Amino acid sequence: MRIAVDGMGGDNAPREIVKGCVEVSKLISDEIIIVGDKTQIQNELRKYRYNKKQIKIVHAPEVIKNEDAPVRAVRTKVESSLVKGINLVKDKEADLLISAGNTGAIMAGGLFILGRIQGIDRPAIAATYPVMGRRGVSLLVDAGANVECKPNNLLEFATMGSIYMQKVLDIERPTVGLVNIGTEENKGTTVVRAAYELLEKSSLNFIGNIEAREIPKGVCDVLVCDGFVGNIILKMTEGLAWNLLKLIKSEFLSDALSKLGALLLSGKLKELRDLFDYSEYGGAPILGVKGALVKMHGSSNANAVKNTILKGIPYAENNVVQMIQDSVLELEEVIISD
Amino acid sequence: MRIAVDGMGGDNAPREIVKGCVEVSKLISDEIIIVGDKTQIQNELRKYRYNKKQIKIVHAPEVIKNEDAPVRAVRTKVESSLVKGINLVKDKEADLLISAGNTGAIMAGGLFILGRIQGIDRPAIAATYPVMGRRGVSLLVDAGANVECKPNNLLEFATMGSIYMQKVLDIERPTVGLVNIGTEENKGTTVVRAAYELLEKSSLNFIGNIEAREIPKGVCDVLVCDGFVGNIILKMTEGLAWNLLKLIKSEFLSDALSKLGALLLSGKLKELRDLFDYSEYGGAPILGVKGALVKMHGSSNANAVKNTILKGIPYAENNVVQMIQDSVLELEEVIISD
Repeated sequence: MRIAVDGMGGDNAPREIVKGCVEVSKLISDEIIIVGDKTQIQNELRKYRYNKKQIKIVHAPEVIKNEDAPVRAVRTKVESSLVKGINLVKDKEADLLISAGNTGAIMAGGLFILGRIQGIDRPAIAATYPVMGRRGVSLLVDAGANVECKPNNLLEFATMGSIYMQKVLDIERPTVGLVNIGTEENKGTTVVRAAYELLEKSSLNFIGNIEAREIPKGVCDVLVCDGFVGNIILKMTEGLAWNLLKLIKSEFLSDALSKLGALLLSGKLKELRDLFDYSEYGGAPILGVKGALVKMHGSSNANAVKNTILKGIPYAENNVVQMIQDSVLELEEVIISD
Repeated sequence: MRIAVDGMGGDNAPREIVKGCVEVSKLISDEIIIVGDKTQIQNELRKYRYNKKQIKIVHAPEVIKNEDAPVRAVRTKVESSLVKGINLVKDKEADLLISAGNTGAIMAGGLFILGRIQGIDRPAIAATYPVMGRRGVSLLVDAGANVECKPNNLLEFATMGSIYMQKVLDIERPTVGLVNIGTEENKGTTVVRAAYELLEKSSLNFIGNIEAREIPKGVCDVLVCDGFVGNIILKMTEGLAWNLLKLIKSEFLSDALSKLGALLLSGKLKELRDLFDYSEYGGAPILGVKGALVKMHGSSNANAVKNTILKGIPYAENNVVQMIQDSVLELEEVIISD
């Protein structure tokens, strides 16, 4: 397995990206290709002891920034670390690319360089969402790529998400829930109601509508919604968890007795913080493009890079892309019979 | 001021509803009219000492249940506590109705019995959302009444919400934020982008797009979104807060040292629970109908009833309905000039 990593994408690049690559290289035997400015990457690598045969550099003099317009950036910055990285996947010189860079550009790069899987109308970002249930995570599709969706897009998201959870997290028949404002099948918008019907007719393990209040409990393996709602769910969780923990901290330090209590609980508080720490989770695969492409949170640190690579390996290894391709015929039958 | 209360609506009716009415009657001099089954209400009232001149009963033999289809229920159960209560407002025999019953039926009752304010296309549910900022709450409009919206509906929600916050919470020029997936003005769906333009042209104190991660911080007074997104925000908050507190509790009781810590912090933990306790907040007014109608959470207890009545008084007293009526002309100018 050859894993390409965008060395220049994200708030902490290249420092934390390189550090994460070195850390993970001690756990795996796969080849790691860091794409980015050769001098900068080398300067970072020099800080560590690592196997020079395992970690390689592909030079890319340009960088796509967060403020760059995605489509334009992908078209014009052909020497950027992101575009060169995606091209490695396209040219079969890498089995996987991981990037913490501009989300829109990762998506645009996937679409223009790798291309959509034939029969998939809309590729989607699939985010691993931390939940309190038995598995620890649900997969949220779409997490922000498609703000406006048709019913068949939601069916596609469900199908691709199920394949991912089956192949990467080894879940036999992943349960699929449709994010909605009530459990009854006539709830929601026209699009959501039509998607409900398609999901019910599909061969997926569809368990019905899921209200947002149930999401943190981990009631299903795949959570299906449009990218607008997916973004709201992810960012609400992030905002609420951090604010709550901040509040807890300030409350707990407000008097001497509470301080003592907080001291006794400090280990537990740290565990709680970790539960909502993005860096513990395995990034967000772009499902529906012809190649394995995984987006990390922009603020990813070395630990996030390490975990994303570890989760990315079974994704690339298990032919998820091919399986999505194979599922397209069945999808079309469900949609046409509607 | 005469305050009507639906004595039969909600999971804890009539027990907690009647208890809340008795509790609040000791704090205010206004008349309270409990609408519901006379025998049941009297049996509850008998448990307390109260001023018989202040608390009255209007008999209503029927009850609209949560599982009843809203429109049908309002049309056919004319002797229900909800329908009779709304009619009291319509006939000017009460200045306000409060109900913890079937949300759809409250909305349908508002539309069919009181009617829309002329020029308001879509009435909305406005929920007081607990935030960590200076004011303690933001008003979320729409919290679930309209799952599909046009841009002008979002402008209406913003206008009605601003008037409510100004009149009821005494905020000079309430800030208005549009819930979106990014801060840039070109973000979001077609509808949200068009609503952005309308809001910018209006005389409201519009501060731009708000990402979901900022919502818990209390970055603005009025949060505008469609009812689908509003429902997701409210229920995510509820689910996440409760799950997090449950998790904290179980973590903190896992060993002896942590138990001691948790004991020292028990007062603080209770304060945190209260922060997300719906019963501390003032219910959700149905804005845009011709009368003051306030929906409470279905699981409301006596404390919630008390607080909703206390917040409902300035709502009915300050002519919010009339002010919304007066704002309609300005709304039309913004929409037509678009």
